[in-house]
Amino acid sequence: MNQQDVLEDFTVLSSLGATPGGGVDRQAATETDGQARRWLVEWLTDNGFAVTVDRVGNIFGTVEWVPGAPFVLMGSHLDSQPTAGRFDGAYGVLAAAHAARRIVADVAAGALTPRLNIAVVDWFNEEGSRFTPSIMGSTAYCGGMAVDDVLATRDLDGTSVEEALRSIGFLGDGTAPQAACYAEIHIEQGRVLERLGADIGLVESNWAARKYEIVVHGTQSHTGATVMADRHDALVGASRIVCLARDVVDEFPEGALLTAVGRMTVHPNSPVVVPSEVRLSLDVRSADADLVEQAHALLLERMAGIGARTGVEVEVARSSLRHARPFRAAGVDLAETVAEDGGATTHRMQTMAGHDAIPLNTLVPTVLLFVPSVEGVSHNERELTHDDDLLRGVDVLSRLGARLVEGALPCA
Amino acid sequence: MNQQDVLEDFTVLSSLGATPGGGVDRQAATETDGQARRWLVEWLTDNGFAVTVDRVGNIFGTVEWVPGAPFVLMGSHLDSQPTAGRFDGAYGVLAAAHAARRIVADVAAGALTPRLNIAVVDWFNEEGSRFTPSIMGSTAYCGGMAVDDVLATRDLDGTSVEEALRSIGFLGDGTAPQAACYAEIHIEQGRVLERLGADIGLVESNWAARKYEIVVHGTQSHTGATVMADRHDALVGASRIVCLARDVVDEFPEGALLTAVGRMTVHPNSPVVVPSEVRLSLDVRSADADLVEQAHALLLERMAGIGARTGVEVEVARSSLRHARPFRAAGVDLAETVAEDGGATTHRMQTMAGHDAIPLNTLVPTVLLFVPSVEGVSHNERELTHDDDLLRGVDVLSRLGARLVEGALPCA
Repeated sequence: MNQQDVLEDFTVLSSLGATPGGGVDRQAATETDGQARRWLVEWLTDNGFAVTVDRVGNIFGTVEWVPGAPFVLMGSHLDSQPTAGRFDGAYGVLAAAHAARRIVADVAAGALTPRLNIAVVDWFNEEGSRFTPSIMGSTAYCGGMAVDDVLATRDLDGTSVEEALRSIGFLGDGTAPQAACYAEIHIEQGRVLERLGADIGLVESNWAARKYEIVVHGTQSHTGATVMADRHDALVGASRIVCLARDVVDEFPEGALLTAVGRMTVHPNSPVVVPSEVRLSLDVRSADADLVEQAHALLLERMAGIGARTGVEVEVARSSLRHARPFRAAGVDLAETVAEDGGATTHRMQTMAGHDAIPLNTLVPTVLLFVPSVEGVSHNERELTHDDDLLRGVDVLSRLGARLVEGALPCA
Repeated sequence: MNQQDVLEDFTVLSSLGATPGGGVDRQAATETDGQARRWLVEWLTDNGFAVTVDRVGNIFGTVEWVPGAPFVLMGSHLDSQPTAGRFDGAYGVLAAAHAARRIVADVAAGALTPRLNIAVVDWFNEEGSRFTPSIMGSTAYCGGMAVDDVLATRDLDGTSVEEALRSIGFLGDGTAPQAACYAEIHIEQGRVLERLGADIGLVESNWAARKYEIVVHGTQSHTGATVMADRHDALVGASRIVCLARDVVDEFPEGALLTAVGRMTVHPNSPVVVPSEVRLSLDVRSADADLVEQAHALLLERMAGIGARTGVEVEVARSSLRHARPFRAAGVDLAETVAEDGGATTHRMQTMAGHDAIPLNTLVPTVLLFVPSVEGVSHNERELTHDDDLLRGVDVLSRLGARLVEGALPCA
């Protein structure tokens, strides 16, 4: 691995969709996402990978040594939140590309005998900011979402995934390579590694999560002429739900439950009109799936009460459950050995956030690694991981990938 | 007055910007507002009025009998909320146009001797949904807002009033006629007249109001990776303010205070990002200005408390006060006499909502009349006033305008 190459490539990649605040804006299938994708395709092609784009816009760069054998898949996502940091996702794709290039060189040099083939992947729409739900491309790859449902998903402006992918030239028709196993490296997005002074996080399991799309239905009227008793104010109802979601956390042990409403859209959203409809996206997470389900029951009961008291209808338009699931111990153990053999310190931990590795973990043996995030800042332009941590992560992933290519993990 | 003409004209006007739900969408200086404006200009021209557009897009149709004398101004606004009823504002402009045409005919026939001239007006941007604040054109006419400030005001997409007016061909350079007095007829937007079975509302005063633009500043982070203790969630802060605004009403006598948040915009508004900034438009109204000020003090104090407890900054970016103000008794008395002489029943009342008549009332003697609204529904496509009420209103306004042209009200 040429360290200078990694850092220079990361600088170039970070310039695509760069924001004045030092971050990036590369929402899924926008023009800037397209720029990053074209850059990746060129990089893969220049480095001898065959490139395939599947029907939901996932990009694969493959090298096949063993005809017919499945692939060691490594990657993450190039898309970002609307104003995001440079590292979330993009680092994982770049690390996978450089790790794979090194492995390919080792094989060519006779230093490594592959039993599996290798592929780098950029998963479509991990972030879910433009097209909901998140983790879309990898979920579709794993059979958790139908291709037609992905393509028919529309953003707030009414543009479908199919239209958006076509407009940037990434509505593919290729067949995705079959995975034998999957490895992903990602920034932690939390403070655990930084606090402990550990180099590499070994993810043992993911938190359980429930995600809701809630629609509050009221009646449009005049803020200056409609007496309070006659109002059915959808925004008052929605705001009580936001407060409920925050306050329910305090009924659980400290740190055990996370909740948030990240998106709220108000209709008609005029200063002097009582809102008729508010849509909101709520998520609830815990390491303990039972706590998520307890919170779920509490929220449903109390949202109904808010609807009745406020004179609005609260509709739970969608509710999806992500199970808490362990990553296979053999993968965690292998990553630990590889990392420590290379001089990195490690820490076993959980992931609170969702990643492409989570659906992959339902399909094949999957390893998820973290590198430290300064102050744990994420989904923010100030997101930062230091160069030495970035490079160490690429090194660990390279050596892990080499072992995986040798068949060190039993297949699914 | 030809009754059939009024109803046919109202049908045509209602077709401009018509919505599938039976209402209209004619936000200020949009293409549909432009259509309604061009229709009015043509109507005025066809009926012998000289048309002037001033620098903030107010349209005046004048007939000058007495060179140099000021004008009896009658009108309202053609712009609407995003999904609105057909009657709010547009009825008042149409009623003024037909009333003025009848008065012009009476003068021509020698049945009326004018001491003042007459003008019909369509005020720019009464609704304030696209460009804030509301009641913009009439406020500028009365000196309450500088022309340059009006033109520089931008909508949520960044388009300025100047650009928007130019794009629809209504960025004028004419001199507005000088008003001697002002008369406006409007739908009530409440249930008082319907409940009492009265034909015409005589507005004696307007409610006091405070309008706020509030910005809640938090810190953008990851809903799935940021522990609750580290969050500065602008949407939680904003939602607590919405709840506060609703709940503070219950600390006042029943019906004494109205509050609402009609607009809320969330940034970056992604399902998995803790919001960094929320802007909201709050209004507080009461017949009693002291209660508005009591509520103001309570809200400021408690919003600061919400900011401190939630870990966000609550910035009151703008706060404007509309004073409660009586309409001159001579005008109310005159309108009452005219209405009852014509066989209409009347009721003296207040206006809770804002109207163009409110700034005009600070400048010249002003009369504001209401016709009944079915079920009080307003700012809603279901808004309805029956034909006989519409026609009775035009008749009363015609006869009031005739008396005003004769100089029945002492000038300011």
